[in-house]
Order: sequence, then C-alpha cells, then structure tokens
Amino acid sequence: MSLSVAVAGASGYAGGELLRLLAQHPELEVRTVTAHANAGQPLVSVHPNLRSLATLTSQETTREVLAGHDVVFLALPHGHSAGIAAELPDETLVVDAGADHRLLDAAEWTRYYGTEHAGTWPYGMPELMLADGGRQRRELRAARRIAVPGCNATAVTLAAAPGIAAGLIDPTGLTSALAVGSSGAGRGAKTHLLASELTGSATPYGVGGTHRHLPEIAQNLRMVGATEVRHSFTPVLVPMSRGILATVTAPLVGDASADELRGAWLSAYADERFVHVLPAGHYPRTADVIGSNSVHIGVGLDQDAGRVVMIAALDNLGKGTAGAAIQSANIALGLDEQLGLPIDGVAP
Amino acid sequence: MSLSVAVAGASGYAGGELLRLLAQHPELEVRTVTAHANAGQPLVSVHPNLRSLATLTSQETTREVLAGHDVVFLALPHGHSAGIAAELPDETLVVDAGADHRLLDAAEWTRYYGTEHAGTWPYGMPELMLADGGRQRRELRAARRIAVPGCNATAVTLAAAPGIAAGLIDPTGLTSALAVGSSGAGRGAKTHLLASELTGSATPYGVGGTHRHLPEIAQNLRMVGATEVRHSFTPVLVPMSRGILATVTAPLVGDASADELRGAWLSAYADERFVHVLPAGHYPRTADVIGSNSVHIGVGLDQDAGRVVMIAALDNLGKGTAGAAIQSANIALGLDEQLGLPIDGVAP
Amino acid sequence: MSLSVAVAGASGYAGGELLRLLAQHPELEVRTVTAHANAGQPLVSVHPNLRSLATLTSQETTREVLAGHDVVFLALPHGHSAGIAAELPDETLVVDAGADHRLLDAAEWTRYYGTEHAGTWPYGMPELMLADGGRQRRELRAARRIAVPGCNATAVTLAAAPGIAAGLIDPTGLTSALAVGSSGAGRGAKTHLLASELTGSATPYGVGGTHRHLPEIAQNLRMVGATEVRHSFTPVLVPMSRGILATVTAPLVGDASADELRGAWLSAYADERFVHVLPAGHYPRTADVIGSNSVHIGVGLDQDAGRVVMIAALDNLGKGTAGAAIQSANIALGLDEQLGLPIDGVAP
Amino acid sequence: MSLSVAVAGASGYAGGELLRLLAQHPELEVRTVTAHANAGQPLVSVHPNLRSLATLTSQETTREVLAGHDVVFLALPHGHSAGIAAELPDETLVVDAGADHRLLDAAEWTRYYGTEHAGTWPYGMPELMLADGGRQRRELRAARRIAVPGCNATAVTLAAAPGIAAGLIDPTGLTSALAVGSSGAGRGAKTHLLASELTGSATPYGVGGTHRHLPEIAQNLRMVGATEVRHSFTPVLVPMSRGILATVTAPLVGDASADELRGAWLSAYADERFVHVLPAGHYPRTADVIGSNSVHIGVGLDQDAGRVVMIAALDNLGKGTAGAAIQSANIALGLDEQLGLPIDGVAP
Repeated sequence: MSLSVAVAGASGYAGGELLRLLAQHPELEVRTVTAHANAGQPLVSVHPNLRSLATLTSQETTREVLAGHDVVFLALPHGHSAGIAAELPDETLVVDAGADHRLLDAAEWTRYYGTEHAGTWPYGMPELMLADGGRQRRELRAARRIAVPGCNATAVTLAAAPGIAAGLIDPTGLTSALAVGSSGAGRGAKTHLLASELTGSATPYGVGGTHRHLPEIAQNLRMVGATEVRHSFTPVLVPMSRGILATVTAPLVGDASADELRGAWLSAYADERFVHVLPAGHYPRTADVIGSNSVHIGVGLDQDAGRVVMIAALDNLGKGTAGAAIQSANIALGLDEQLGLPIDGVAP
Repeated sequence: MSLSVAVAGASGYAGGELLRLLAQHPELEVRTVTAHANAGQPLVSVHPNLRSLATLTSQETTREVLAGHDVVFLALPHGHSAGIAAELPDETLVVDAGADHRLLDAAEWTRYYGTEHAGTWPYGMPELMLADGGRQRRELRAARRIAVPGCNATAVTLAAAPGIAAGLIDPTGLTSALAVGSSGAGRGAKTHLLASELTGSATPYGVGGTHRHLPEIAQNLRMVGATEVRHSFTPVLVPMSRGILATVTAPLVGDASADELRGAWLSAYADERFVHVLPAGHYPRTADVIGSNSVHIGVGLDQDAGRVVMIAALDNLGKGTAGAAIQSANIALGLDEQLGLPIDGVAP
Repeated sequence: MSLSVAVAGASGYAGGELLRLLAQHPELEVRTVTAHANAGQPLVSVHPNLRSLATLTSQETTREVLAGHDVVFLALPHGHSAGIAAELPDETLVVDAGADHRLLDAAEWTRYYGTEHAGTWPYGMPELMLADGGRQRRELRAARRIAVPGCNATAVTLAAAPGIAAGLIDPTGLTSALAVGSSGAGRGAKTHLLASELTGSATPYGVGGTHRHLPEIAQNLRMVGATEVRHSFTPVLVPMSRGILATVTAPLVGDASADELRGAWLSAYADERFVHVLPAGHYPRTADVIGSNSVHIGVGLDQDAGRVVMIAALDNLGKGTAGAAIQSANIALGLDEQLGLPIDGVAP
Repeated sequence: MSLSVAVAGASGYAGGELLRLLAQHPELEVRTVTAHANAGQPLVSVHPNLRSLATLTSQETTREVLAGHDVVFLALPHGHSAGIAAELPDETLVVDAGADHRLLDAAEWTRYYGTEHAGTWPYGMPELMLADGGRQRRELRAARRIAVPGCNATAVTLAAAPGIAAGLIDPTGLTSALAVGSSGAGRGAKTHLLASELTGSATPYGVGGTHRHLPEIAQNLRMVGATEVRHSFTPVLVPMSRGILATVTAPLVGDASADELRGAWLSAYADERFVHVLPAGHYPRTADVIGSNSVHIGVGLDQDAGRVVMIAALDNLGKGTAGAAIQSANIALGLDEQLGLPIDGVAP
C-alpha cells in the first residue's frame, strides 16, 4: 500500500540520488520521472547505476505527467518550482530540492538571486533548533510544501547551532571554510568543472560574501537565537565527487571547558538519529558519511585563539539534498522519519 | 665550476623534491645522497622519477660522507640536524628542511615538540617582511646555516603578512583553514595515510591549536609587526598528493576598500619573483603551482562579515620546502635567487 | 526471529563492508565482531562510518567468542580460516572471505601460496555457469562452509564465462587488464599504498603470471567448459578506493556477429538479478556499481583484431567480497538471494 | 640569439604544455600565442600556471599573426593545420600536434576521420626504429613540417617496437589496455568529462577497434618490421589528469628467456635519452613521468600464458604531445635534442 512518487528533474545529480534512495524506500514507490533534455530515454541511460529502476523512462516535466502522485520531488534549477507547484493539488506533497522557497526575506532573495521571491515554504531541516526550544520538525508535520535546505547551509547550521542556542559562541565572529565535492556544483558541462581542472587541485569559489547559501545560514542561526550574524564563508572544491567538510569557528563566549562545550552539542543532538557528535578529540571525515543521511560533528576548543572549532561532515547529495528531502517527506507523511535513509556511510 | 652538494635524508618526499630541483640547477651539482634505510641502494630504486640521477647510490648519513661538500641539505626528521651540523665545518652551507632551528623561543619549542631547543638559525623565507621595512632576505646573505620554513607556515605567513604590515587586518582575530595534499604528512607507512583512507575524503588533523606550525606563524607575524597574534588554524587533508590552499581571514581594521587592500599586497610583493598577487576577483588554485616555487595569492573583502579573505596556493614540496631551501641557498651563495627554480606550475 | 551473526577480522576493509551490508540485512543480526589488534575497542573507532553498529565492541578472535552464532563470516588473512572453522560446529554456517578454500588443486595452492592446502569448500559464486548447464548456486544450497571468490577472479570469470560456455571465444588466448581500486590491497600500512604514492598515478602490480587469482580464474573457466586456459592477467592500481574494471579479450571462435555475441551474454545472465549486460555499444564504469552487489558487463566485437572485448565492472568490496559472501549465505540459509544487497551503485 | 616561436591554439591543454616547456627552452622564445575563443585576453587568464609568460596576450589564429616566426607550433583540432601551413613560408618550421598529417594511407585517414586526407608529414617520433635498422630521427633532420604522434600511439609503439624489430613477439596477437588521464580527452566542456563523472571511477571509451590511434600504431609497427598487425586496443579513463599507462601483450615467438627479452629492449633504447627500460621485475607507474619527456618501460615474460608483457608509462601532454613536438623541433633545427625537456618526472 505504498504511496506513489514522481521525481521532476531526474537527470541531474540531486535527482539521481533521490531516485537511488527512493528505490529502497519501503513506503514510497517511484512511478514517474521527468527530465526535459532526456525525455523519451530510459532512466538508466542517464543514471546507469540505477539498475533497479531500469523500467522507467523519462518524460517531459508537465502538469499532466506530475499530477496524480501522492508525492512530487522537484530537483530543478531554481526558478521553476513555484510554477509547477501552483499547478498541483494542494494535497499533493511537493518537496523542492531547489532554492526557491528557502528564504523568509524577499529582499534577501532578490539580492542574492536577482529575481522576484516566490514565497517561503516550510524548511526541511528537522533537526534545526528553534529559539523557543522546539525543533523545525514540528513545522513539517502535515506540511504539503517543503523547501529542502542547501547542502552547505545544512553543514554550517548543524555545526554551529548548539553553540549559538546555548550562548557559548559569538555569531558575529563566525568563519567557515568548506572542502566541497564537485557534485555540489551540478552536472552542467562547464570547463571549470572538468576532471582535468579539478583533479589534483583545491579551488575556491564564491569567495568574499557572495555565496547564495549565506542568507540561508544567517536565517537559520537567527531561528536558533542569534540576534546578529556576521559570517565569513569560503567553499573550496577538492578532488572528490561527494562530500562537504565544514570547518566552522567562532569566538568562545564565557569560559566553558572543552568538555562543557562538547556536552552542549551532545545534549542538543541526543535524540537525533542522523546527527552524531564524535568523542572528544575526534573530528569527522567525509568518507564516513558518503551515501548516507548522517552528519558527523566534532567540537573542540582552541584556548590560545579563544575560538571554538566545530567541524561537520555530510554527503552533499545525501543529507545535504536527497536525504533531507526524504526525511522531511517522511515526517510530513506521518511515516517513521528514518525510512529509506541509510545511517552508515560507504567507506572506504 | 659548479658547487658540490650532498642531500641527507634523500628517501623521503622532501629529499626527492630537493634532488629533482637540484638536478636542473646550473650551479649546484649533487654528488652525494644519504638515506639510512636505503643505504647501498640506487637512488632510482627509491625515487624512480629521478632518472637523471640514475648514477647515484644512497649512503649512510655520517659526517665522513657529508663532509667535503660546499652545500649540505638536510631532509631529516626533526631532532637530527643540530648534531650533524655540529660535525660539519662552519664554512659549509647547511640548509635544514626540518623544524629544529626555526623557532626563536626555546620555551615554545619545548611546548610543541617536547624536547630541548637546538638553537635558532637564519630563517629561509626571503620574502618575509620585517617591521623595519626590510626583508628576511638580508639575514640570508652569507649565512652558513639556514632553517627552511614549514610549508603551512609559509602559506599562511605570505598570505597575511602584507595586511599586518600595513595595519589593515587585526592579527588577534586570524583564522585559517588549509586544504593540504598528503605528501605534507611524509612517506612513513601509516594506516591513516593510505590511499584507501584519503581518496574521496576530506580529513582534518591537528585541530584546535595543537599544530606545530602555529608558533612559527605567530613568530613570523610578529616579525612583520603584529604585537599580539591569536590564530585558529585547521589543516584538512584532501585527495591530492601535493599542494596547500590556505584560506586565511582576519577582521578588517579601518575602512579600506577592496582595491586599496589588494594594492597593499601588490605593493608588498612587487619585487618578488615567486609571489604573484592575482587580479581582483581571482583566487588561486593549487594546480597552478605544482612543481614550482611560486605562491599565488588572492585577496578579497567581505563587507558583510567585516573580514579580509586572503587565499594562498603553493606546492608544499616546492616553495613549501625544497624550493625555499634552494632559493635561500642561492641567496646565501651569492647566486641569482631564481636559479634552478621553476616559476610555472605543472597544470592540469 | 533473525539469525545471529559474528564477523571475525572486522577491522579490515572486507570486514567493514560485511558489517555495513549486514547492518541493513532484515534476517541477519550482527551480535559479535572480533579484531585482534583492536580487541576491546568500540567498532566505530575502527570504522567510524558504521554508526548503526555503535554499540558493538571488538573482541579477540577465539572459539569461545565465535561459537553460538548461526553464521560466522571470516575476513582474515589467508591461513587462518581452516583452524577456526574446525573449532566451530558443523551446523554453523562459516563463510570465508579469504583465499584458503577456493582452489580444488592442492598443488596449485602450494605453487601460488607456498603453504599446505587447507581443503576446498563450496565456491561462493552463485552465477558461475557449469559445463552441464547448471549453476554453482546448487552447490551452495544447504552448504555450511563457503569460500568467497577473489574480487579480480569474479570480474574476469563473469566477463568471460558466457563466451566460453557457448564456444564463442578461445580460452587459450585470454588477456585481461584490470583497473583496480586501492582497497583491494587491504588496510595494512605499506609505503607503496600511501595516498601520496597512488594519487594521480596508475601502478601495475602482480605482472607476468604471478597473481594469486590466476589459478582461481582458470579453475572457474574450466568449470564453465574450457579444456585449456592460457591467460595473461595484469592488474593496475588506479586512484580510486573501490572498484574493478576488467577489460578481458579473447580470440573470436567462428563468425558470430556482435549482436549474436551479446545475445549469448544476455541469455546467460537473463535470470541473474545482480549481473547486468549493457546495451550494444555501451560499456560499464566502476562508479555505477560502488556500494552495490551488481556487476555491469559490456561485450563488443573487434573485427579487425579478431577479438571479443568483454568489460566487467564491480565493487571489489561489494560483489567482489562482502556482497558475494552475503549472497551465498542467503542461498545456504534458504533466504531470498537478494536480501540485504543493494542493486544500485552510489554514483557519482 | 634565440629563435622566435608562435603557438597556435594556445588555450587547450596541449597548447598550455607546449608553452610551459617552451618557457624554459634556452634557444626558443615564445613571441606569439593565438587562441580563437580567448583572443584579446591575457594568456594567464586561460593558463594561470604560466606566470613566466604573463606579458603575452592571445591573438586570433591568422596568417598575419603567425607569419614571421622561425617555428610555429599548432595545437588545433584536427582539420585545421593543412590550411594554416599552406599559408606559411616553406622555410618556417611547422610542428603540428594534431592528427592531420600522421597517416601515410589516405584511405585509412578517411575511414577513421571521415574527411579527405591532408597529406603526410615527417613523423615526430625520433626513437621509432625502422626496418632497415635506422631511426625516424633521420627523417626529422632539416624537416620543415612535422606531425607529432598521438599520445596513445607513442605509448604502445615504444612499448612493442623492440620486440617486433627483433622478431620476439607476434604482432598479429597484440592487445593493449591503457589507463589514461583525463587531459588526453581535451578541454572541451563535455558532461562525460566532468570531475563528478570521472572521480572515483574507471571508464572505458573507444572500445572495439574504433579508436583513431589504431591505424597510426599499425603504421608504426609496420615501419618497425611487422608484416601484419592485429591489435585489440582499449583505453580506460582513470581519475588522474595526466598520464598513460599502456599494458601491451603479445604472443612470444620462439623461446627467449625473460632476460633475453629485456636485453632486446635495453639494446634498442641504449642510446635514447628519454626512454628508460626498468630493471628486471620492475614496471613503471605514471607518477614518475609526469611533467617530463621520459618514457619508462618494463618488460616481462608470462610463461604460462605464452605472452610477453610490455608496460609503458608517459605523460600524455609531455612526451605524448608537447615534449615530442619540441624534441622533434630540436632535431629539425639542429639543436641538442634534449634542450628544454625535463628527464625527471614530478612525483609524488
């Protein structure tokens, strides 16, 4: 008695990972995939790894094709989801892996994306702490429109949130540097994303306050309790296809010990099945979360620098995109939050 | 009429890169290589890339073997260079690629290395700005003992020094995150350095103020003019064999524009042949410096965060170790500083 | 009412992948893990990716520890499994991921391994075609000792078997060259397996007829129907942690067309859920099978060379080791052969 | 009193490597670079690694721009060199890194490239043995038009030629499988060359006798003395930016021992400065030749298979393209063949 699912924009990396995870989901069944440029082609011609979905053929992304499913996942470039969602019934669960509906503030949207804001949907980060002590999860129960967070935003937010909520770090002195796999930059054929360009090299991009995940992170941290956020954010492409390692630092507020600090993170995520705070002195690496919906977090105190160091690892396509989409859909549908979502990463 | 050279500790990565560069040096001729574990073996059995040195055989690292050369490069684990140098004549130029003689402060040495300090040698970073407006280069002229800087220390120091010298950034709020190639961790057979562990992953190490390059960086920045340095420093191993990309940030002091900032870096390195400040809006990647003695630096201003972002790329084995050793030796020997040192990296 | 499982030798890569897959198996429950060097430590300290098994602690590999389980998987260096199996009850299912019990011929064992042969166990390659038209699967039903095939042997055997069975290729002119990920070489700390050595390089090993998988492949191909096997086999380590791409060629026998050839492979694997023969003109890549139990095979005809080209991709730790172990155990236990085994690879 | 050089098609990888090597050449001086899509831009905007050529700006590829140089290197897509060369004076040395003028047989050209043949130029592989005991080098002395060999063709030819010349291997049973870095596929923005597609994967292409280097290899081996060549050739893209490892096998003719075999290769290349035959039991890896003009070759005998295994490693952009171009130009210009060409690879 499974629910029927359509995935729109199936030919990209986010679409592919959604399908890989959905193929193992016991309650959701993929009936339809759409992909404009590949319409009419077998799905496996675009994603040869998805042998268990070998009977599916990509269709055009139209209302007719998408209507009639219980859940529609959108993995489209930003700017497309509002139009499609408007054409679908209100009772259809629409989960948007793109950016369109993440931001609350229309002006910030326009500043970073240059277009008119399409409105805000419930934000698909169940673990997000709220200033009143709740979690974002409550906003997702019975939601029928969900905006999936950005992958970098998830890494930085989950790394820093417990410290901000507990008043242990100063959000006006935040810095983060992220080692990022190339799949986060999408499947478009661009010279600077060629294997020859990225193999054997570390390449920064979006330097100096220009990255579009910045307002999303600030919004999240204000939800957690920050009154002002100042944040220097630098992503660096490194030679791996998946994974984000976010190294976040912020000034220590007060005089908590390293153990007290770690205790705050442990306590914040004690009930979270996908967020794992590592033992003292341990820090995560991306290999351990590849293919999973897990986030590994290590927290340390640098006494000399007066800073807390928070390092988070996740799979940008997993918990960073497709995993969060399915986790949020599970909540909205009243299913077990963990259904279809691996805990263990594929290492080595 | 070339000068005779010996390289001690030839079997590691630093030794190998010294030999690769020396083989092309028009005034220095490698006569002797030593390598304890490989004594008696042809050099090419340990470094099959060094075909132009195929006639050399590794010997034991003894005074007898090393004596009688004009220049001796040491590429040994720390703790070994003082004893060897003491046995060599004062007029022999001894260039130590290891850490033993970098620090001025014996207490800091003991704190980070746990042993007694072996004394300080002239520091082999010719481009280092001094508070009196000079350069470290003047200390190297006619020096007969030289301590080669640490690779991470070079990246962070050269990235930040112009801003500190010009009073444009606050050295008490420094953060740096480095994407580092595995060769920086040496050639010792350790499980956590296996290809299976590091391929496809980003792995932090030395987190939270414990890294041994920290006191060296602070010392450098005080030479430049900082009165106090507070610095959060996080290196991350990424899947490449060579290269360091250092992302350094610090609070902006005053209200300089992005162009004024970049102007300070351009001016600081105007006469330096190996340090290249990139055009506005451009940031370096490690691919472009591999195999070379060049450092590429990009500087940006993040107005929202109130921070200056300084990104430096270098080859940890090149300018980070062997290149700096040869550059400093060139100066000490009165040769053209650039002899034997490539400017152009091997990309892609 | 799941069956209890122990994994001996849990700290290596094969052990880790067994545990990752077993953690998702609906009928098998891991109760015990052993690892000599890590006895007493939490499993996650050795395999930080296995968060779902965070309650397990490694024990010593002794009879007492292993006894009392329904299934024992051995992931030990060769030479250890016979002794352990002898101490376990006959009714315990023992599945050996090592080499000890793969070969039928004691003399060949001694030639390649240098020790005395420990005897032969049923061979865990369910898809192996037999000369009488059957499959190896029938030998596994109700077996209580199983020898898991070597990863390279599986790739070459499954690539070539249909052509040999159908008399379409000449097994006395076989060549194979394999691009192999580093995890196949194990987790031992060896200099030549360091990331710095393997990153950015292709490195052959076991060249010229010395590789230990050679007699196993020949044995398999004789089972399929070959009367004589002559086989040049060259594995090449390439910079990836997992995956084998085996390019196998052999002279065409007769005058079959490319379509007729492909038809033989399609027909041979028509009922196999894990072996996927690709469309004409398509060849597999390893990315598409990572983390899965699938094998992708492409077959082509090179008219000018008079050779058939057969290319197989699999995950050396998945179908190459742990997946085959679990698939064979499923058969021996009377379970659905596919339980706990992913079809879809983790790409990109 | 250096000679003036122009490089046409400077924005690709072959053009970039030509420029990197030419920048170090003591007798050749790059005065002009052309690049259609980047005309008017500084060369360093396209090749940020080439800091020593920072004063050059790309121009359009026209007769006017190219005329007046002593040497013109062409690094253009095939089909463009004949027209440009026809417009340049006969006394200008034109070295074409593309495929247009490599083949002797117009029909073979048309079969593999689909266009009309542009004629044959002297072939830029100095080490190629000729059936009369000479070397191709003699054809290059005073040549004013040179066709640079294909990178894969160079690897396979140099690996197999000594065995064919000495009658030790059978060229009708040749197989080769090549692990190839992505830069060999060029700098065009294509989805299947994205880092996300190639990282962590081995991907075959040009399978089954379709690759355009096949007729070139057969032509070379006939020059060496083969009367008939039958050759199964499979290139596999692996996750590295540079390098080719060619594993070539052929049936042993006669009963030479392994030592006798190796002796034939040693003798064939005894006077060649760029071809290095490794000690018995040693095989090359690509890391050791990166950035150099060297070829490393290992030769073994597989008695059981009755085959000789010949493995060659080279840098596809170095000896595979730009190095061979400069080496051949050196010969044509009467310079020392080694000028400007590194022997030692950049490893690790």
